[in-house]
Amino acid sequence: MPEYTLIYFNFKGRAEIIRWIFEYGDIPYTDERIAWEDWPEKKKDTMGGKLPVLMVDDVALTQSLAIARYVAKQAGLVPEDDLQAAYCDALADTVNDVVEEWIKLITSGKTEEDKMEEFNEVLYPKFLEPLMTRLDNRLQEREWFISDKVTWGDLLITTVMGLVRETSASVLDNFPALLAHVHKVEDLPKIKDWIEKRPETNF
Amino acid sequence: MPEYTLIYFNFKGRAEIIRWIFEYGDIPYTDERIAWEDWPEKKKDTMGGKLPVLMVDDVALTQSLAIARYVAKQAGLVPEDDLQAAYCDALADTVNDVVEEWIKLITSGKTEEDKMEEFNEVLYPKFLEPLMTRLDNRLQEREWFISDKVTWGDLLITTVMGLVRETSASVLDNFPALLAHVHKVEDLPKIKDWIEKRPETNF
Repeated sequence: MPEYTLIYFNFKGRAEIIRWIFEYGDIPYTDERIAWEDWPEKKKDTMGGKLPVLMVDDVALTQSLAIARYVAKQAGLVPEDDLQAAYCDALADTVNDVVEEWIKLITSGKTEEDKMEEFNEVLYPKFLEPLMTRLDNRLQEREWFISDKVTWGDLLITTVMGLVRETSASVLDNFPALLAHVHKVEDLPKIKDWIEKRPETNF
Repeated sequence: MPEYTLIYFNFKGRAEIIRWIFEYGDIPYTDERIAWEDWPEKKKDTMGGKLPVLMVDDVALTQSLAIARYVAKQAGLVPEDDLQAAYCDALADTVNDVVEEWIKLITSGKTEEDKMEEFNEVLYPKFLEPLMTRLDNRLQEREWFISDKVTWGDLLITTVMGLVRETSASVLDNFPALLAHVHKVEDLPKIKDWIEKRPETNF
């Protein structure tokens, strides 16, 4: 097995899904967290100038979803069926489109109050609510989102809904099937262990 | 083999890479092109409300890159090696980040003159030039971008560079290895046939 080092900042952000997949698959990796103030210096030597980066031995792999998919393959979290694997990918890109809007808001330089107002009046109704409605509808009829087993799609939904819950605690209550799914994934033993032991971070 | 229908507008945009992969793999598909004026009505019945959508028999797959990767798998254009497959994915997401910025500009409602100015003064120096430099550097030493065979990554680079050439004919001349690669991919017999027979569209 190659030696894996996941390089990111000390928050959940775009890397948490990758950490969950490593943990679920019981795959050894180094969880390297770069201090914000050290980033401008390290950025110059970082392939593509963006984090996360996964070092696979001495080779750098970029792009959070490409990394997640690769590690998911090693962890047995990519469906064997090509079309189901593609549904995982489509789910990931759809969720990511919403996360991108969210990151734009978080990094907008607005006051916390203005950000919360924009979350409630734009991000939630325009992006999150339609997504959560689709997820909830599908989960009313299914044990796992894509196949008859857990996939990295289920983990991804749960990490993102964790961020939703941190931002606005009550929002998830409107989507009971989605909420139950989040709890089910968070209760998977390896994931539960990770949530207990992971560093406390805000985002 | 399932029956494939690719639904998109009558331009290249996000669907051209998928069409190239179908053509390269000699996989039969229906290339359904929706007239712009019919879209508001059709949008209501479209899964996710966005195009392209690939119908696989009667099931809808969304997200252009998820579709491309799935069809590439069927066409033998995804590397067997997991890490090389992940490099294709990372390349696709990196190229897509730039294309997203470009689409924002194209759909900004600015005049054509203002768009061209912003292309030359922002999009090109900030996004396209760094990407093209990375592509060109790597292609100076390699026959194909990812592995020792053509992959969907090579086709993707070429479709996007085709759009660059349409926008600003001379830009590619600054990147000789990249330009040679574009010509090599465009000269693959199945791709060459497609370029000759495809509908003429602006973008």
